[in-house]
Amino acid sequence: MVGKKVIITGVPGVGKTTVINTAMKKIAMEGVPYQNINFGNFMFEVAAAEGLVQDRDQMRKLDRHVQKRLQKLAAEKISTIDGNVIIDTHTSVKTQNGFLAGLPEWVITAIMPDVLVLVETDNDQILIRRLSDKSRVRDMESSKFIAEHQVLNRAFAASYAMLTGCTVKIVVNADFLLDKAVEELSAILR
Amino acid sequence: MVGKKVIITGVPGVGKTTVINTAMKKIAMEGVPYQNINFGNFMFEVAAAEGLVQDRDQMRKLDRHVQKRLQKLAAEKISTIDGNVIIDTHTSVKTQNGFLAGLPEWVITAIMPDVLVLVETDNDQILIRRLSDKSRVRDMESSKFIAEHQVLNRAFAASYAMLTGCTVKIVVNADFLLDKAVEELSAILR
Amino acid sequence: MVGKKVIITGVPGVGKTTVINTAMKKIAMEGVPYQNINFGNFMFEVAAAEGLVQDRDQMRKLDRHVQKRLQKLAAEKISTIDGNVIIDTHTSVKTQNGFLAGLPEWVITAIMPDVLVLVETDNDQILIRRLSDKSRVRDMESSKFIAEHQVLNRAFAASYAMLTGCTVKIVVNADFLLDKAVEELSAILR
Repeated sequence: MVGKKVIITGVPGVGKTTVINTAMKKIAMEGVPYQNINFGNFMFEVAAAEGLVQDRDQMRKLDRHVQKRLQKLAAEKISTIDGNVIIDTHTSVKTQNGFLAGLPEWVITAIMPDVLVLVETDNDQILIRRLSDKSRVRDMESSKFIAEHQVLNRAFAASYAMLTGCTVKIVVNADFLLDKAVEELSAILR
Repeated sequence: MVGKKVIITGVPGVGKTTVINTAMKKIAMEGVPYQNINFGNFMFEVAAAEGLVQDRDQMRKLDRHVQKRLQKLAAEKISTIDGNVIIDTHTSVKTQNGFLAGLPEWVITAIMPDVLVLVETDNDQILIRRLSDKSRVRDMESSKFIAEHQVLNRAFAASYAMLTGCTVKIVVNADFLLDKAVEELSAILR
Repeated sequence: MVGKKVIITGVPGVGKTTVINTAMKKIAMEGVPYQNINFGNFMFEVAAAEGLVQDRDQMRKLDRHVQKRLQKLAAEKISTIDGNVIIDTHTSVKTQNGFLAGLPEWVITAIMPDVLVLVETDNDQILIRRLSDKSRVRDMESSKFIAEHQVLNRAFAASYAMLTGCTVKIVVNADFLLDKAVEELSAILR
């Protein structure tokens, strides 16, 4: 398909949504349009269209093999979209049983992205942002655990890049430096 | 097959065996039975059954391609076992030529585990445990090298999870906190 | 094919070339011959033989799919070489769009190396070596960025090893300790 496929990820609280939305506005004004797809929502729509679920909560109760099939189907649908696409998702997801690949082999090879962006910042800054954000209920984790998650995300990212040939771009979204993060992401999207 | 497949790994001296045995007793008392398979021993039995070796030392002298075939065969046999299975092995193994994947592609995709557990703790604690353990002859390594091994293990773990969809659970077995490690592992096994 | 395939990598400024050349001389004197192939040059020759390019600059302008095909072809040609081979390349390459796998799946599985060597040293030492080296024009990066690159390289290395079963050997090329690095590499090559 014609167009760039850019996957954007970051641990909860890093400010991924703000960076994406601001960068999208900026480059839209420059005449570079992007469609923004949230992978989780997109997969839910695929499942709902099949009549498998009616609300998001039912998604995680699906059989592992059904989930895998839906993930793959969603990824294949995304790969056929014409034009530039941002895929908003997670490099890895924290679950009760540990970290789960957000882009397992059957997903990442179906999407075959051009770039995988990791939005990162200092673990302490993420912790403070989570504590300050009253609009969302988030698991409270120590700075040490956030570090663990960010370290593992880099390792997952390398394995995705090894398999697909996409680049891995780290965009730092530091306190007071949102503009810098937005400009770095915009340069990738252009 | 029915049942959970949980791979449990950790660098020498981290206390993996103690954590596994204590957690297995605990959950057996709760009525959750697990079979504990040491991957190295299991592979030896497969090789011995074929008449290829008579003792463990001969294993490492086998041709690389024969080793690969035996690894795969052992993994396939494990995958057909009914019921809950712990696979006790290594995320990566130190050899004279560097770190070797303990669960290369042909092994991890045959087992298709539910969870990969990394038992970890501070590098200094591992060093002291090794120095204190007179029951086993272990290579003496600096704390820096142990750090290198644990860092690489996380990277290997992410690549295994990318390929199979298993979760990566880090269980910290810190000094004086064995109970915590056992409870965390038990929660995974339940 | 008969012979060892050893891939040697390291970030710019780590002193990879010096370590390789010194180790090759040392083991040649011991009667262990190695052929040294620069992967980038080799791929250029493959492309030039097809009439696709006339100089190195044209390589990066080739279509992504053509590049992929050439990478694979070069890797397959290397895999058929008899005798011991050093492949001088990069674990990951810094580009404008982020880090690119130097040995993506279609390259590493074609080469099927015995060992992947990461030549590493402290980030600060690399920075100072780059600042001191007036013979080459190199991007100036902060020590923090060099750290990021070396961390990601370990993760890439683990994913290559997971896929192929090669070992990952870290050779530290510290200031004043070139002899140690050369001896460690020589031990791998012997």
